[in-house]
Amino acid sequence: MTGSRSARLAQTLREKQIDHAVLSSLASLRYLTGFTASIETGPSPFTPVAGVLLVERGGEPHLLLADSEPIEGVFSGMATSTFMSYTIEKPIAAVADLEAKLLERLRELPPGKVGIESEALPAAVLEPLRSECPRLDFVDITAALAEIRMIKDDEEIQVLRQCCALCDTGQKLAKRLARAGMTEVELFAEVRKGMEGQEGGRLPLLADVVSGPRTAGVGGAPTSRQIEPGDLIITDLVPRHSGYWGDSCNTCVAGEPTAEQRRFFAGISEALHAAIDRVRPGLRACDLDSSVRQHVLKLGGGYPHHTGHGLGVTWHEEPRICPYNTLALQPNMIIALEPGIYFKDRWGMRLEYVVRVTRTGAEVLSKFQHEL
Amino acid sequence: MTGSRSARLAQTLREKQIDHAVLSSLASLRYLTGFTASIETGPSPFTPVAGVLLVERGGEPHLLLADSEPIEGVFSGMATSTFMSYTIEKPIAAVADLEAKLLERLRELPPGKVGIESEALPAAVLEPLRSECPRLDFVDITAALAEIRMIKDDEEIQVLRQCCALCDTGQKLAKRLARAGMTEVELFAEVRKGMEGQEGGRLPLLADVVSGPRTAGVGGAPTSRQIEPGDLIITDLVPRHSGYWGDSCNTCVAGEPTAEQRRFFAGISEALHAAIDRVRPGLRACDLDSSVRQHVLKLGGGYPHHTGHGLGVTWHEEPRICPYNTLALQPNMIIALEPGIYFKDRWGMRLEYVVRVTRTGAEVLSKFQHEL
Repeated sequence: MTGSRSARLAQTLREKQIDHAVLSSLASLRYLTGFTASIETGPSPFTPVAGVLLVERGGEPHLLLADSEPIEGVFSGMATSTFMSYTIEKPIAAVADLEAKLLERLRELPPGKVGIESEALPAAVLEPLRSECPRLDFVDITAALAEIRMIKDDEEIQVLRQCCALCDTGQKLAKRLARAGMTEVELFAEVRKGMEGQEGGRLPLLADVVSGPRTAGVGGAPTSRQIEPGDLIITDLVPRHSGYWGDSCNTCVAGEPTAEQRRFFAGISEALHAAIDRVRPGLRACDLDSSVRQHVLKLGGGYPHHTGHGLGVTWHEEPRICPYNTLALQPNMIIALEPGIYFKDRWGMRLEYVVRVTRTGAEVLSKFQHEL
Repeated sequence: MTGSRSARLAQTLREKQIDHAVLSSLASLRYLTGFTASIETGPSPFTPVAGVLLVERGGEPHLLLADSEPIEGVFSGMATSTFMSYTIEKPIAAVADLEAKLLERLRELPPGKVGIESEALPAAVLEPLRSECPRLDFVDITAALAEIRMIKDDEEIQVLRQCCALCDTGQKLAKRLARAGMTEVELFAEVRKGMEGQEGGRLPLLADVVSGPRTAGVGGAPTSRQIEPGDLIITDLVPRHSGYWGDSCNTCVAGEPTAEQRRFFAGISEALHAAIDRVRPGLRACDLDSSVRQHVLKLGGGYPHHTGHGLGVTWHEEPRICPYNTLALQPNMIIALEPGIYFKDRWGMRLEYVVRVTRTGAEVLSKFQHEL
């Protein structure tokens, strides 16, 4: 799989007449090398980049990894060396060490173009490369890389199924455990505990856990708000497993649903399943969004957000299912679809499944049931 | 407090003959504006910087914040506006929007120097500034900013006390709950749940939770390893509260400690308390490290890591208590001291407290007791 992704990159570089690449986004690193950065505690105090992948035309890709980062996930056979980040022997000089190792290789190259990810490359790293390698022209290729990553290969689809299975576990737990008297953050802790138990380790987890009137605001992190009888609870769980992100959302009630809650829940569920039924290659993202939007607006509430988005080594990527987006669906795109309905300052509801675009329609990867 | 920090920055800029500053590190943003970025799920897919603080000579600082970021923590009175990150109406163009808003102000400036944080500034943001503002000279001031932040003001010390109180709760829970038969990640989940309950919300948390032979490796994330009777368990908890980081470490046993375990625990505890007794303004970091290192090595095991480090808006900063570091301690530095001892492939032990350097010695901010 490594080989085929690198081959797609090489082909794209050729098409764009780019000779080499210096890639530094966590997305590209995971996609092309298997390296999965630790992310839960923010920027490292030791280095501004976790690693850099150097791709020279005709050569094997070479990964330069900070020596403080986990190397376990890196694909076997990937040429890897490290640069120094933190040591007790001398002051931190990660950028200088990385720079020296990059220049060793880049200085040898004949004149040409080098693709970079300028939004994921600190000025401190790029500027010395520009000044020390005047024969090389560094050009941004972020958009081309995002395009390559839109269509998932078999191994990616397998990992994304595992991500969805973690979501299934979380959603089943949330439905089972949510009750009046507990706080949002208590519910969240139990749900995450179950998911981390299944994972056998920590799980980076983006999550909305909002209850009562907070559901009107679409999302938000869990707080110490105590869930009250009759409250709606939106639980949107987005875990990262093996460097890939799952997604899922359910809305349930603390106690017995009212007739109104049941009616809107059925309406949003219909909107979701109608959307899944429409999915097929060639359908434009904006048309999928439009049909769902009309469906929801007919129910009579507000719909202030998108209908969905792609998933992969990032938790939000193309195809974005938005009003503006004329991009057409293609087989093996993985998309989260998440219609919702919101009544200002009162309440809101959202249901989400992840689907794979097949050659003829959609395969639903989420296996949990939406239950009010 | 905002005012006094900005005043320190202004003074430093004057001393270094820098006219203005464009600051983008999460550390500087928290320190100077109160903005606390969401960090637990890695880089945003919507923008490469959460915000930028623009400081013009003689003017009020102005914060440009991505509209997807939480604005709650920003100091009252801080001039703030937003740039667009994600919207369903048009493709993402955060950098272009930020750029336009920065250039609006920077183009008006007379020739001069602008301080930047080049490791925390993406090339995509800096390069257009350089080309569009040829009269401005952008120079890195990362080191000067780190130096300003070494000494904590009263408000910071108050927040750091709260961070340490969260650690106290976590450590007491870890000691009470750790037992044979549970997995590391189960123990971790219960500890974090208690800390998040106290916080009333999610808590970014760097943590080592290692048991049995894994303790010989100093640290690591919790895994599905089942704790066995007699295992040592190292629990190192580093939570972020209100944008500041606490730190703490205890080592305990699942069951009854052996005489050997008690002896080494007492030895490391003595090393820690001897270190605390030595802390005073003027003491060089390397001398503090050296005394602890000699103490530990006399006990007969390995000591492959530093003796400590500063804490603040990052979880690892100056003063780093390392063999190379000749920096002298000063009042209101906040340092984590963490002597440990390790026997290759067998076991390890570490004890950590956070202290404030006072005018005459040290005040211990950690209130939990180390218990084997």
